Amino acid sequence: MKKIIVLGCGMVGSAIAADLCDEFDVTVADLNKNHLDELQAKHNINTIQKDLSSPGNVTQLVRDFDLVIGAVPGFMGFETLRSVIEAGKDVVDISFFNEDPFGLNELAKDKNVTAVVDCGVSPGLSNIILGYHNSKMKVDSYKCYVGGLPVKKSPPFNYKAFFSPIDVIEEYVRPARIVENGKVVVKEALSEPEIIEFEYAGKLEAFNTDGLRTLLRTMKIPNMIEKTLRYPGHIELMKVFRDVGFFSNEEIEIDGRKIKPIDLTVKLLFPFWKPEDDEDEFTLLKLIIEGEEEGKKKKYIYTVFDKFDRETKTSSMARTTGYTCTAVARLVLDGSFNQKGICPPEYVGAVPGVMDKIFDMLKERNIYVSEEDF
Amino acid sequence: MKKIIVLGCGMVGSAIAADLCDEFDVTVADLNKNHLDELQAKHNINTIQKDLSSPGNVTQLVRDFDLVIGAVPGFMGFETLRSVIEAGKDVVDISFFNEDPFGLNELAKDKNVTAVVDCGVSPGLSNIILGYHNSKMKVDSYKCYVGGLPVKKSPPFNYKAFFSPIDVIEEYVRPARIVENGKVVVKEALSEPEIIEFEYAGKLEAFNTDGLRTLLRTMKIPNMIEKTLRYPGHIELMKVFRDVGFFSNEEIEIDGRKIKPIDLTVKLLFPFWKPEDDEDEFTLLKLIIEGEEEGKKKKYIYTVFDKFDRETKTSSMARTTGYTCTAVARLVLDGSFNQKGICPPEYVGAVPGVMDKIFDMLKERNIYVSEEDF
Repeated sequence: MKKIIVLGCGMVGSAIAADLCDEFDVTVADLNKNHLDELQAKHNINTIQKDLSSPGNVTQLVRDFDLVIGAVPGFMGFETLRSVIEAGKDVVDISFFNEDPFGLNELAKDKNVTAVVDCGVSPGLSNIILGYHNSKMKVDSYKCYVGGLPVKKSPPFNYKAFFSPIDVIEEYVRPARIVENGKVVVKEALSEPEIIEFEYAGKLEAFNTDGLRTLLRTMKIPNMIEKTLRYPGHIELMKVFRDVGFFSNEEIEIDGRKIKPIDLTVKLLFPFWKPEDDEDEFTLLKLIIEGEEEGKKKKYIYTVFDKFDRETKTSSMARTTGYTCTAVARLVLDGSFNQKGICPPEYVGAVPGVMDKIFDMLKERNIYVSEEDF
Repeated sequence: MKKIIVLGCGMVGSAIAADLCDEFDVTVADLNKNHLDELQAKHNINTIQKDLSSPGNVTQLVRDFDLVIGAVPGFMGFETLRSVIEAGKDVVDISFFNEDPFGLNELAKDKNVTAVVDCGVSPGLSNIILGYHNSKMKVDSYKCYVGGLPVKKSPPFNYKAFFSPIDVIEEYVRPARIVENGKVVVKEALSEPEIIEFEYAGKLEAFNTDGLRTLLRTMKIPNMIEKTLRYPGHIELMKVFRDVGFFSNEEIEIDGRKIKPIDLTVKLLFPFWKPEDDEDEFTLLKLIIEGEEEGKKKKYIYTVFDKFDRETKTSSMARTTGYTCTAVARLVLDGSFNQKGICPPEYVGAVPGVMDKIFDMLKERNIYVSEEDF
């Protein structure tokens, strides 16, 4: 039985471990013993309590395993990945770090490892599907809409953060790099809102976010955009907060004391965004891929809609992210994907037959990817 | 020539002094020498630079005058008024203080002074008009809508503060006391928004504010309400800021430092509310007075609409407040109004012939009070 170690026992890391532990010998490492104990009470895993922010620890830790899953917080992700590659281990990583992953490409090639990065739902599954089509047709336009939302609207924000709230604010502040007519263009965060109607969720509002990431480099597609979905009205509010300066992390002086507005805002705002226990939520992904295939204009629309799983108490956010990751993990372990170096998910999708295998594994877990073509 | 001293050379105090100085010997007192010098450069006034927050100073200062005008900031108003009454001087006051003015009633009667309080536009002119009708009919319902707004809408707030911004936030936070079916009821600030259409201003939104003040005590009218006007959408935003906690003045701890959210909010928000130099603005007042007169159902609607005066560079806020005050000041000086003790403006309106004299003086200054009756 192959041995896998999952670095990080957070919401997604635990869903990943739970999904793999019946087929593989799974160990989970985290600083937080409670999370490890809770998971071990429900699933057949080994646990190691360890401070993963210490790079030396990680390289040592992963020595005896066949595959590593990286599921640590974004701010730690890059260095953790480096340590795993230094140890010469194949890795599938979902941590949403800011650094350019290709900075580790030479190292990964030298060490002869397969390192899949950004392997969640979006980035992740979206990249896989685009990579597949990009290998079979001339893609002119790629649009990706994604969002995780509560079922119940709680005014005034009608939003709950099912992942790290500070990363949510990042999305509202970080300028979005998109591609227009072949050029990378930087758009203001929260810009160009559009209304999109979905069958289950109704009218949602989509705004530019900086989610294309590796695609900006790997895809020669003249028009690419990623937009995040929220209930209507949320974006307008966030714009006001941002424009007034409540998201700023520049210190200002109040009565002789220095304070960053974002620190106060976070303290006041996050209680409003905290989900209730087992709050119903859903994840939506919609891709529109257009171009030319066999001399004809062609358009593909993919939709994924997943809901909180009451049986396993797993959020759709954890499921769609985690099960894309575990699907790719299996394909790395069985040799179906064995490219060396830093491999964003679009490389995985380009390998014949792989995308369908991933869809099958998702279907087995009740995640359905619907496809329409025109 | 009668001698008048104006306490406070702010926006309204200076408009008051400028209006009186051709008919009376006017002195203006303030801590700020620049304001005094600027005013003296344009008008025939005497000036005294003095710290009016020191009560002993005020009693001394007003000794040789026939009438005092109180135009100091709200937080100073009550004590300044007390000092003037102690000196035995008649006074017409516009400062918007929180304390109950009737607390000075015994003192004013002992000293045999006429002390008119809250003598601006609303409270002020609105009270005068209600006092008039209350003396002539059985009033069942009184509705007062008032607001000072910029002509130009600047998103997202579509608002500029033409008086003290911290008092604007007070209006958004302080619960509003209204009268419903004969009982004083406390409504949440910003509650019960309604849309009202005006000829010049278009659709405005009105919400409950705590402006009835002395009327709660002096009028036995079963239904009374005051609402403040804003452009639509402004109130929703203010509710969010308030509900999240940005207007709170309870200290919270950020990184070991204690801070009141309101202090940060004020620093970030007020630049958005600062009017441009000579920015066009307007003041709207609408009163609906209903009841029974001479055995028949009767309804009166009063409207005042005034704009920034480009010739004298005086805001409509200063004009409507200041010229109501100066009108009443003349009537106190010539004996038309000579009731002793604390006199809210509704007492002034109840004296036969006085309201018409006030309307005439306003008309001379291009402030028109239109009246419709049904």
